[in-house]
Amino acid sequence: MSPYAAPVRDVRFVLEEMLEYGSFALPGFEETSPDLVEAVLEEAARLAGEVWAPLNASGDRQGCQLKDGQVRVPDGFVEAYRAYAQGGWNGIGVSEALGGQGLPEVVASAVQEMLHGANMALGLCPMLTASAIEALAHHGSDEQKTLYLPKLVEGTWTGTMNLTEPQAGSDLSKVRTRAVPGEDGTYRLFGQKIYITWGEHDAAENIIHLVLARTPDAPEGNKGISLFLVPKYLVNEPLVNADGSLGERNDVICASLEHKLGIHGSPTCTLSFGEGEGAIGYLVGEEGRGLNHMFTMMNEARHKVGIQGIGVAERACQHAFAYALDRVQGRSPRSGRSDCTISDHLDVRRMLLSMRARTDAMRALALYCAAQLDVARHGTSEDDRKTAQAKVDVLIPVVKAFSTDQAVEIASLGIQVHGGMGYIEETGAAQLLRDARIAPIYEGTNGIQALDLAGRKLQRDGGAALATLIDEVEGTARALLATTELAPLGEGLAAGAADLTAALAILLEQGSDPERGVDAVQAYATPFLSLAGHVLCAWQMGRAALAATAAQQAGSSDPFYAAKRQSADYAIRQWLPVGRAQRAVIESGTASLAAFQPSA
Amino acid sequence: MSPYAAPVRDVRFVLEEMLEYGSFALPGFEETSPDLVEAVLEEAARLAGEVWAPLNASGDRQGCQLKDGQVRVPDGFVEAYRAYAQGGWNGIGVSEALGGQGLPEVVASAVQEMLHGANMALGLCPMLTASAIEALAHHGSDEQKTLYLPKLVEGTWTGTMNLTEPQAGSDLSKVRTRAVPGEDGTYRLFGQKIYITWGEHDAAENIIHLVLARTPDAPEGNKGISLFLVPKYLVNEPLVNADGSLGERNDVICASLEHKLGIHGSPTCTLSFGEGEGAIGYLVGEEGRGLNHMFTMMNEARHKVGIQGIGVAERACQHAFAYALDRVQGRSPRSGRSDCTISDHLDVRRMLLSMRARTDAMRALALYCAAQLDVARHGTSEDDRKTAQAKVDVLIPVVKAFSTDQAVEIASLGIQVHGGMGYIEETGAAQLLRDARIAPIYEGTNGIQALDLAGRKLQRDGGAALATLIDEVEGTARALLATTELAPLGEGLAAGAADLTAALAILLEQGSDPERGVDAVQAYATPFLSLAGHVLCAWQMGRAALAATAAQQAGSSDPFYAAKRQSADYAIRQWLPVGRAQRAVIESGTASLAAFQPSA
Repeated sequence: MSPYAAPVRDVRFVLEEMLEYGSFALPGFEETSPDLVEAVLEEAARLAGEVWAPLNASGDRQGCQLKDGQVRVPDGFVEAYRAYAQGGWNGIGVSEALGGQGLPEVVASAVQEMLHGANMALGLCPMLTASAIEALAHHGSDEQKTLYLPKLVEGTWTGTMNLTEPQAGSDLSKVRTRAVPGEDGTYRLFGQKIYITWGEHDAAENIIHLVLARTPDAPEGNKGISLFLVPKYLVNEPLVNADGSLGERNDVICASLEHKLGIHGSPTCTLSFGEGEGAIGYLVGEEGRGLNHMFTMMNEARHKVGIQGIGVAERACQHAFAYALDRVQGRSPRSGRSDCTISDHLDVRRMLLSMRARTDAMRALALYCAAQLDVARHGTSEDDRKTAQAKVDVLIPVVKAFSTDQAVEIASLGIQVHGGMGYIEETGAAQLLRDARIAPIYEGTNGIQALDLAGRKLQRDGGAALATLIDEVEGTARALLATTELAPLGEGLAAGAADLTAALAILLEQGSDPERGVDAVQAYATPFLSLAGHVLCAWQMGRAALAATAAQQAGSSDPFYAAKRQSADYAIRQWLPVGRAQRAVIESGTASLAAFQPSA
Repeated sequence: MSPYAAPVRDVRFVLEEMLEYGSFALPGFEETSPDLVEAVLEEAARLAGEVWAPLNASGDRQGCQLKDGQVRVPDGFVEAYRAYAQGGWNGIGVSEALGGQGLPEVVASAVQEMLHGANMALGLCPMLTASAIEALAHHGSDEQKTLYLPKLVEGTWTGTMNLTEPQAGSDLSKVRTRAVPGEDGTYRLFGQKIYITWGEHDAAENIIHLVLARTPDAPEGNKGISLFLVPKYLVNEPLVNADGSLGERNDVICASLEHKLGIHGSPTCTLSFGEGEGAIGYLVGEEGRGLNHMFTMMNEARHKVGIQGIGVAERACQHAFAYALDRVQGRSPRSGRSDCTISDHLDVRRMLLSMRARTDAMRALALYCAAQLDVARHGTSEDDRKTAQAKVDVLIPVVKAFSTDQAVEIASLGIQVHGGMGYIEETGAAQLLRDARIAPIYEGTNGIQALDLAGRKLQRDGGAALATLIDEVEGTARALLATTELAPLGEGLAAGAADLTAALAILLEQGSDPERGVDAVQAYATPFLSLAGHVLCAWQMGRAALAATAAQQAGSSDPFYAAKRQSADYAIRQWLPVGRAQRAVIESGTASLAAFQPSA
């Protein structure tokens, strides 16, 4: 596999020239200087490229091993994880109050992309820990925070999320794991959880499981579910005994590892709670509010999955470019040379530019969303924070679903660029497709994301937050139209905005119909999310074109800006039209899906 | 994995109600009665469903083993292949003059789809043999035909195509394997061929390799390449010695097996010719015309790869439908039941209907193409034959590339329907994606198909053959518009035809420009093929809607017809619009691709 060079320049372009350091100006980030951020990005790129990336292919080949309840992750993963934790990377996005470094979300997100691009399977470990930190920070008691957060933030311990059971996947109201209260205020948990990412491994001293379970006599459905903290090793003060040991081993074991299409370096576990006397668990937050507590952090976890898709897409780009610039085949239509590299064939260039443009666009949108997250948390006025949060709520399902669907397509295109070599596992292109394919499924399938957007998010505010974003898209279109060179991009973008506005009107009108509203939301959800994703990504590339042109007009002859303009041109003129077709899909109505009987 | 039921009813609908037994009326097919064809399809379905399909997952898991130059295919594959050969299936599409059964290509294609749907890895073995038969039938000497064809047609021996070398993939002019003439008229071959499908195995008594190689002093490039026949075991009269042995082992060995993303049950070999004194080979056809001879059969081989994509797509459909109708999750938006199957959620129905509609459409187009192949060979007048061949030439790159690209998307959607289960290998959905992913690459990448269509095929007749097809599309649109119920489909189809006509005009005008023509063809090729594929598939579904409606109007209440109409509705109103967007892509011009410098 070709070496991985984390996209520092591309990230800096977004942070500096498109977002104009917006997050850094917020209260709480006074010490976040551009120089500091540059140093952070460079150092993260080094860790990603030199330490994590070289283990990506070997980790895939070797996979994880389960023996006597112990999971061994692939060779080198333990050391690579420790290098990450010891470098302080686990806490970069965590607030200083919790022991983190409190860098803006835009910076943390950029670093996450680099790590996932280098090694997605390994990246999942801290990604799950981050969710556990988030859940505890929001809903844990002071004692729980004191006991667990410092080690989780420094990465000495890792965290997991235990939601899914065989009969309870997208519908978590069906969770059956039982939590029986004891007299000391603790609970005993009994049940089986599946698909637990990094549920058991040898890279950390302890694993803190957050588990959805049902208390006795709890009502059926969502309201009977509570959230529990179940450590692999029980923890007391002092956290570590004088002899270096932790507390007793809890009654939770890894019963099996899944044999998956990809992310072989990430142990996906079936965890059995309470095969003996019950796993000791501690209630987090309020009884019966487990699902709500879980959803608090779901938004950010979904953003991270979108980022993960972008990381793999970037990796696929780099791999395909490296091959296409090296592989000699065929006669160049331009130079007539019979020994050109395949990058000289326009059909191959089309694939490369398509991969690059889409990756650029998705990154810009995900970082824009991260910047809005920063404002939502640190904005100076409540108004600012609310507006930003409303945008975030709309953007996150798009970032998650659109980026991961696109990442699968981009990884598949990466295989195609390699021709026959792409189908051979040693080349590495196939692994990227296999790895990427999970992202549209976990953390809420992309169908669930689309329903979240088209149903809950858009219906509850009558589309107001999305309309604000569309206004901004139109503003960018006007700015493009006001230039000489970029006017065609302005036309395309304006047309995309009009399509999205029209589709939104249909969705809101039909979606609010008391009788047929549910059908409308369900039928339009996925096409609508796709349309929104294309338009919002194209918008970002319109902004990229303006920023790149400004730099050129200021005298820069850096070919980077010309490349960004080509990316933007492709995104708006060749990629956006495909997304715009979803308006026609929505206009075709709900009847054919509603009438369709799959059993016939 | 759910059981596989070959789509007999769907195939019969196309043959009987859409193609109206057209092929059967041709001279030479007097004995092909509908009853006979029905019996053939039922029997093929039994072989596919009961013998081949049960080995698909186990073959994937076990893969092929190379030991001491011998390749062992997965358990059961040898017996399943022999059941196929002994059942006479290998010769069903081969003319009676060559020892086959001489059934029409529409029937042979339908059977191929069933076998690939059941077990694509195993299906590759006879697929390659068919190409070898084709090459020998067209270009072999009488002696070669007598010696090799009977055993190949009956399937006792299998055939391979040896084209690719490490430096010669899409560009075969770079072939370096040497063929040194001896004094006895034979040649000695030296060189290495890669990616040789079923290049070595234990399922047949002998393997007949067809090999591209270069004679000494041959000119550089295409014209120096000749085609050679290299048997694994040398063959003389009598073919089999009194003791049952064949002739001597030739100097060709399997040096290694590729470790691939999918089709693990199909041995993909590196073959070394002439590690000793040289592999004995026999010139096939004329010296220096090897590539031409190869391309004779390429068209049909490409059609077969398209069919293969359709087979896997059908399998993915069935697997996804079975899961969606069984998996209980969530509350039904219609019935309010909290234990509905996921097939009751419209977003899941959307995925299922999308898979089904696209598969139906691609099958109808591929069988339409096969019917034109029948006319091209057996038509009563030369005019008929020429017109049909011209259509075939245009259709084949579309069937190959479009069906295989779509098959990858359909298999990926099949994973998505399964949610988390889809990512677990035991479920079987992931294998279908892994298997399907090769089809856009081999037998000419889909980029090469697009160039073949947009360049050679359309430029040489000024788009005349495609224009004839577009006329037929418009005829179907008019027929739909003339009805009450199907008029919206007529509108959609007419708009698609108009887009294709407009895109064709651009392609022809810019493609014939002496300076910029090559750029235009290369830049537009893939979007154009996608547009053509969508419009032609939608056309077939327009015809399906008319046929299904006719059956209903004739009194049938079979839900099959209602399902076909839903498929057609989806294909034209929700799928075609996405394809139509490619017109805008083409209208955006060639400049951005031509200016793009991947090295920047």
